[in-house]
Amino acid sequence: MLKVFDPRQLGHAPEREFHNGGWADYAETPVRSRIVAERVGDTVPARDFGMAPVERVHSPDYLAFLRTAHDRWVEAGRTGDAIGYVWPVVGRRPLNLSRIDALLGQYSYDAATPVAAGTWDAAYWGAQTALTALQPLLDGEARASFALCRPPGHHSGADYCGGYCYLNNAAIAAQAAIDAGKRRVAILDIDYHHGNGTQDIFLDRDDVLFASIHADPATDYPFYWGHADERGEGDGVGATLNLPLPRGTGIEAYLPALDTALAAIDAFGPELMIVSFGADTFAEDPISHFKLQTADYGTIARRIAGAGLPVLIVLEGGYAVDALGENVDAFLNGF
Amino acid sequence: MLKVFDPRQLGHAPEREFHNGGWADYAETPVRSRIVAERVGDTVPARDFGMAPVERVHSPDYLAFLRTAHDRWVEAGRTGDAIGYVWPVVGRRPLNLSRIDALLGQYSYDAATPVAAGTWDAAYWGAQTALTALQPLLDGEARASFALCRPPGHHSGADYCGGYCYLNNAAIAAQAAIDAGKRRVAILDIDYHHGNGTQDIFLDRDDVLFASIHADPATDYPFYWGHADERGEGDGVGATLNLPLPRGTGIEAYLPALDTALAAIDAFGPELMIVSFGADTFAEDPISHFKLQTADYGTIARRIAGAGLPVLIVLEGGYAVDALGENVDAFLNGF
Repeated sequence: MLKVFDPRQLGHAPEREFHNGGWADYAETPVRSRIVAERVGDTVPARDFGMAPVERVHSPDYLAFLRTAHDRWVEAGRTGDAIGYVWPVVGRRPLNLSRIDALLGQYSYDAATPVAAGTWDAAYWGAQTALTALQPLLDGEARASFALCRPPGHHSGADYCGGYCYLNNAAIAAQAAIDAGKRRVAILDIDYHHGNGTQDIFLDRDDVLFASIHADPATDYPFYWGHADERGEGDGVGATLNLPLPRGTGIEAYLPALDTALAAIDAFGPELMIVSFGADTFAEDPISHFKLQTADYGTIARRIAGAGLPVLIVLEGGYAVDALGENVDAFLNGF
Repeated sequence: MLKVFDPRQLGHAPEREFHNGGWADYAETPVRSRIVAERVGDTVPARDFGMAPVERVHSPDYLAFLRTAHDRWVEAGRTGDAIGYVWPVVGRRPLNLSRIDALLGQYSYDAATPVAAGTWDAAYWGAQTALTALQPLLDGEARASFALCRPPGHHSGADYCGGYCYLNNAAIAAQAAIDAGKRRVAILDIDYHHGNGTQDIFLDRDDVLFASIHADPATDYPFYWGHADERGEGDGVGATLNLPLPRGTGIEAYLPALDTALAAIDAFGPELMIVSFGADTFAEDPISHFKLQTADYGTIARRIAGAGLPVLIVLEGGYAVDALGENVDAFLNGF
């Protein structure tokens, strides 16, 4: 299996995040990907596909913001990582705003996703990592490949960051596959948290199916998206499938949801599957509440492989750092 | 002039606010209203008009949230003031969310407006203060009255808090006036910051005119609302007037904008004017950037009085505490 890891993603290292009433150490650390890279072994660096495939998913104004946000923060006399404090929950629309705090709110939805000095470069190479791992699948040279992306991507929409995510690696790969001639692509999101950014990007599209198994947003981040009644909009009605599960879910309750998602993917008839894989469903994850064990990732992977589709695996979350290499390895070995 | 001040509003005292990258002392302090009350003298406490007039403006779900948010925060094991960290910038809709962090995001738009232990009671009596000051105007017994409201209200919408505001005192009074038989009411907002909550509440209404003079939202809070092209929606098109002014504005540039607003109010033909008055347009205000002097508040008040309408003055912001009593007094003396 081709495994892509690019050390240029390590430059993204926010100090802290704001949640649950105060500051906490930033959970999405560079060491996460170093540990996974060491454990899975034999990685290759990303090729540079340039900005064109990124611009197919993210808006020009958002990309301009993300590139310059930390510089503008410093120019405003601030120190540390750039972080917002006010958000347009009603009447969000294009605006010509000149203050960095205003831009941070316009282009994000939480106070837990700061833009640090190295964020743009890392996010850029994260996206290139996904595109590099996609290429042999498009060329028919492989049936499965792994993109060790960081920062993760699935909470990032066309014009916003959030949930540790800045560029949507899985969505960029899905769009690149469509642009390369694949008629239908399925994205299976099995991170603990709902992939609201991916859903939002393809919400009105009938050529990309988004199916997600995640913690019930009534209790878990990102709260406002991922409820079972979200089924897509316009042409995309029916091409969004949300399967929220309660806290405490173990493999017995997880597998039926997985089978439901795989049945929907099979019915959709895609030519490629992209798996947004988060190991934060692990029982010992410090910020999540499912009960999966390391061996369960092999079980899940084998069921996914059973779909018989070319599969691009894109890394999303997973914060039990000591076990992260083992859990990702168990998943990859299922293919 | 009837002046209403209720000491039950003093129980609202958040410790700190989150903005510009970190914590700051909470600027909207109880001492603000104590200083104003002492300076203007002869105040009477609020009468209790109950929840009915509050429920005419704010949604039942938001009121239930605001009443219980701090208790739920404590039940979740948190300490200090309840504050959000994630907000629904896309796809905001009614949801059944069970986690307090989710509710805080659903019902607010910034990380600078915590719900403290005493917030609900203070906000309730702030609203009753506005209603009490309104009554003699409705009864034809006075031409001007002053509601020393705290917390302020003009950033609060029908179902959200933000910008130090929880219940929209001016909007509650305007709706009460309509419900008492006034056919048209004008709200003139002359706080430094745009009164986005008031605007939002009456955006599609043709019986309440909202006219606001404020700092350009391209540079100043609340950023996403108060731009000159916001003119109202549906039946309310034309009944919203925004006059943003640049930082550094002094009385020479302020008065033409005031004349424009007063001309629009005159053309609207209201039976009552409500003035959302903030003294944060003062040159020494620590968080704002206009250049008005104490004597200017008398000038402004005399022009407003010249409209010949019954006027309810509702206090909004003003954070130069040492000068706040003097500035409010100068304004009231203009009537």
